[in-house]
Amino acid sequence: MSNRVGNAELQGKITTAEQAAAMVEDGMTVATSGFTPAGYPKAIPLALAKRAEREELTIDLFTGASVGQELDGELTKAGIIRRRIPYQANRELQAAINKGNVNFIDLHLSHMAQMIRYGFLGKIDLAIIEAAGITQQGELILSTSVGNTPTFIQAAERVMIEINTSQPLELEGIHDIYIPFDPPNREPIPIMKPQDRIGSPYVTLNPGKVSAVVFTDIVDKVPPFPEPDEACKGIGTHLAEFLKEEKKAGRIPENYLPFQSGVGTVANGVLQGLQGLGAEGLSFFSEVIQDSVLSLIDANVLAFASGTSLTLSPRGTEHFYRNLHNYRQKIILRPQEISNNPEVIRRLGVISVNTAVEVDIFGNVNSTHVGSRMLNGIGGSGDFARNAYLTIFVTPSVLRGGQISCLVPRVSHVDHTEHDVDVIITEQGVADLRGLAPRERTHTLVENCCHPDFRLQLKEKIVQGEKQGGHTPYIK
Amino acid sequence: MSNRVGNAELQGKITTAEQAAAMVEDGMTVATSGFTPAGYPKAIPLALAKRAEREELTIDLFTGASVGQELDGELTKAGIIRRRIPYQANRELQAAINKGNVNFIDLHLSHMAQMIRYGFLGKIDLAIIEAAGITQQGELILSTSVGNTPTFIQAAERVMIEINTSQPLELEGIHDIYIPFDPPNREPIPIMKPQDRIGSPYVTLNPGKVSAVVFTDIVDKVPPFPEPDEACKGIGTHLAEFLKEEKKAGRIPENYLPFQSGVGTVANGVLQGLQGLGAEGLSFFSEVIQDSVLSLIDANVLAFASGTSLTLSPRGTEHFYRNLHNYRQKIILRPQEISNNPEVIRRLGVISVNTAVEVDIFGNVNSTHVGSRMLNGIGGSGDFARNAYLTIFVTPSVLRGGQISCLVPRVSHVDHTEHDVDVIITEQGVADLRGLAPRERTHTLVENCCHPDFRLQLKEKIVQGEKQGGHTPYIK
Repeated sequence: MSNRVGNAELQGKITTAEQAAAMVEDGMTVATSGFTPAGYPKAIPLALAKRAEREELTIDLFTGASVGQELDGELTKAGIIRRRIPYQANRELQAAINKGNVNFIDLHLSHMAQMIRYGFLGKIDLAIIEAAGITQQGELILSTSVGNTPTFIQAAERVMIEINTSQPLELEGIHDIYIPFDPPNREPIPIMKPQDRIGSPYVTLNPGKVSAVVFTDIVDKVPPFPEPDEACKGIGTHLAEFLKEEKKAGRIPENYLPFQSGVGTVANGVLQGLQGLGAEGLSFFSEVIQDSVLSLIDANVLAFASGTSLTLSPRGTEHFYRNLHNYRQKIILRPQEISNNPEVIRRLGVISVNTAVEVDIFGNVNSTHVGSRMLNGIGGSGDFARNAYLTIFVTPSVLRGGQISCLVPRVSHVDHTEHDVDVIITEQGVADLRGLAPRERTHTLVENCCHPDFRLQLKEKIVQGEKQGGHTPYIK
Repeated sequence: MSNRVGNAELQGKITTAEQAAAMVEDGMTVATSGFTPAGYPKAIPLALAKRAEREELTIDLFTGASVGQELDGELTKAGIIRRRIPYQANRELQAAINKGNVNFIDLHLSHMAQMIRYGFLGKIDLAIIEAAGITQQGELILSTSVGNTPTFIQAAERVMIEINTSQPLELEGIHDIYIPFDPPNREPIPIMKPQDRIGSPYVTLNPGKVSAVVFTDIVDKVPPFPEPDEACKGIGTHLAEFLKEEKKAGRIPENYLPFQSGVGTVANGVLQGLQGLGAEGLSFFSEVIQDSVLSLIDANVLAFASGTSLTLSPRGTEHFYRNLHNYRQKIILRPQEISNNPEVIRRLGVISVNTAVEVDIFGNVNSTHVGSRMLNGIGGSGDFARNAYLTIFVTPSVLRGGQISCLVPRVSHVDHTEHDVDVIITEQGVADLRGLAPRERTHTLVENCCHPDFRLQLKEKIVQGEKQGGHTPYIK
C-alpha cells in the first residue's frame, strides 16, 4: 500500500469504505471523479448504498459524465440520488429521471467546471475521487479519466480518495492538469496542437481537506462495444468518401485536421471509416479514447489522441497496458473543460462527428430524447458541434428493424439547431447542408439520407409545408 | 476628392455608380460591407436596382448582418437577390424570404468569415465596400461598421469601393482589423480586455483587384429607436436588481464583467437598466454600439465599448461626431469574427443579454421565427449566449396588447437550447434556471415570468405534461 500513498499525512487517513461512507451526511452535494465508466469511485459508493438500506439518505451527485454501475446504478437503486449533473447513461437512473424522481440537469460538459467555480451550482460538500496513487507531496496520480476532478477537488470542502490498485501506477504522466483562471483574469489556453502539454501530470491536493483514503481493486466496468453493423459501416464509408472529396476540393487541408468522435457503436463505425481515408499521422482531439482509437494508433492512422478518459473494454485495457510504453507518447488525458474547450476546438479546427438520435428535415438534431423521455444527455456533442471546423452528425436512417425513421418532420427535442449543423450522414448517403436554406435542406436530406421506405411519406410532408408557406415550412 | 483617395492607382479608377453597376454580372456572388444600417454601400446597389428595370439580373448577396434600404430593400424590390447570407431585417426582403423567393441562410455571425475562407460558401466574385477614405498606400479607412469586410476583400476576385463623404475621415483609427490564420495554423486571439487593440486600423487592399471607386454622400439610414415602454423599463429594473444580488452573492466579480446586449427597443430598456447598477467604469463587449451605449459612456457607467458597428440615430450620429475626440479613446470597431468570437467571449466572461421572440416553459428560446415565418435571424445571439459567463434572455411577458403570451408550452423554432440558457427575465420577474431540471424550470418560469392572464392556462399544461411523464414532459 505504501507505494501507492507516498504522503505521510495521507497515510494516516487510510480507512475502510464503510467508515468513509459513514461520514457522508444527508443532503450533501457530492462530486465524484469519473467520465464514462472510467476512473469513477466504486468502494465508497457501494458502502453508501449499503448504508442507505438502514437509513434515509439523499445527496446531489455531480460527476464528469456517465459513470459505472457501482455509482449511478447502486445509488439509484438505494434511492440516494436527488439531483444529478451533468450526464448519465445508466438504465436504472434513466428510469428514475423519467419518472421525475431524480432531477437531472443536462449540461454541456465543457461548461460544468467553470459553473462550479463561478458558484452557479452551489457549494460542493464532498469530493470522492479515484486515483492510482498519491505522491510524497500529496499530489494525485489520477486513473483512467480526468473529467471534472481538478475543479471538484479545488472547490470541495472535504475530499475522499479511493486508491484503486487495479489501475496501474504506470498511468503516471499521461494526465495533463490545467485549470484556467476565471474572468476577468483568464488567459488564452495555450494549446496549438493536440499533443501540447500545458499543465501538470498531477492534481494538487490540500491534505488537510482529506477525510479518508480508501483502498479498492474493483475494475472499471466498460462493456465491450458490439461490432458495427452494416448501417454503421455504410456511414463510415460515406464519411471517408465525403472527407476525401472535401480535401480534393481544397475545403480541408492536405493533412486533414484533428478529428473528434462520439462514443458507442455508431461512433465505432465512424472511427473505422477513418481507416478508409488512406491517410497516416492524423490526430484525434476528443473526449473518449475507446478501443477503436487504439486500433487507429496501432495502424498509424492516428499519430496522437487527446481526450479526457480511457474507456477501454477488458480486452482493450489488457492491450493498452501491454503497450503502455508506446501509447504513453501518443495519448494525453485532460480535464473535460480543456478536452472540450470551445476556444481550443475552434483554434485547432476540429472535424466533429457525433451521433444523432433523430434529425429533422431542416437539419435540427435531437441528441437526448425519445419523445419526452431522456436517454443520456447532450454530453460533449454541443461543445464540439458548435465550435468545430466542420460539424457532422451521423445516424442510421432507420431503427428497430426499419420501423422508425431517424429523419423526421420535427424532432422531439432540439439539442443542435440548424445553425450548428453542416452535414448529415446516414448509410443512405451524405446531405451537405452548408449554404442551403431550409426549403433546400428538406429536399437534400430526404433525397440523400432518408431510407427509401419513408421517402415518399416525407416528400408529401414537404409539399404540404411548402403550401403553407414561410421560411421554415413546418408541418403542423 | 483627392484627400479621400490618397492612392494614385486607385484615383485612376474613380468612376460613376452606373458604370460600376454595369460591371456586375448575372449570377455573381456579391459580398458587401455593412452591419446593421451602418457602413453598407448605397450608390452602386441603387444603380444596380435601376439597371434591373431593363434586364434580368440575379445575385447571391452576402453581408455582415442587416443593411440599409438602399441595399436589401431596393435589390429585393428589383428581384435581384437569389440567396442571402447571414442576417437581414428588411421588410420587403422578409416577405420574399417567407414566400420562398429568396433562399436565406441564417448563420451565427461569428461563423461566416471563416466559412468563406474555408471555401464552405463558394467563391466571392465581387466585394462592394463602403469606406471613409483610402490611404496613400491603398489601405481602406472603413466607415461605421467593420462586419465581414476584411475577409470579403481578401476572398473576392474583384472589389469596388464606395467612398462615402458623409462619413467623416476622423473615423480613422477607430477600427481594429485582425484576420486570424486558419487551422492548423491558428493562434490565440490575443484580446485579454475589451480595450485591447490587436490589429491594424486599416484594411489591406490589393489595388490591382479594384474595378471601381465611386463617390457618394448618402447617409446611413438608422431609424431612431422608440423610447422603452413600461415593460422594457421593468425588464431593465429586474435585470439590474438580479445582477446586484449576484454580485452580492459572490457569483459575479466586484467590478462586474463586460456586458453584451442585443439591439432594438427591448435592448434599449436593458441598457438603461445598467444605469440602475449604480456602478461606474464598466465595459461593453458586443456587436452594436447604439445611442444608449453612448449615453452610458457619457454617464461614466461604461468606460469602454467594443463592437463591430456604430448604429446611431441621426441625433446620436451628430452627438457622436461632436464628441469624437472623446469617444475615440473609448470605442473600438472590430471584425464581427472578433467582436463575436467564442474564444474571446468565454475568456472575458461576457454577461450576455439578448432578446427572445418567445421562450418555452423548459427554457428553450426562439429568436428568429413567428410560426414558420422568419423575422430577422439568429444574428450574434448564439455567439454570445453559447459562450457567455452568464446567459440571459429577456422578453416582455405578452405582446400585441396582452393577446399573446411570450412564454409558451413549446416554441415554434429553437435557436437557443435549454442547455444554453441561464436566466429569463420579463417585466414580471426573473427565472433563474441554473441547476434546475426541466420539471423545475416549468414552475419557476410560470411563477416568475408569465403574465398573470396566462398563468393558469400554462399551469394546466404543466400538470398535463407531468401526468404523461418523462424528463421533459412536453404537452402534445
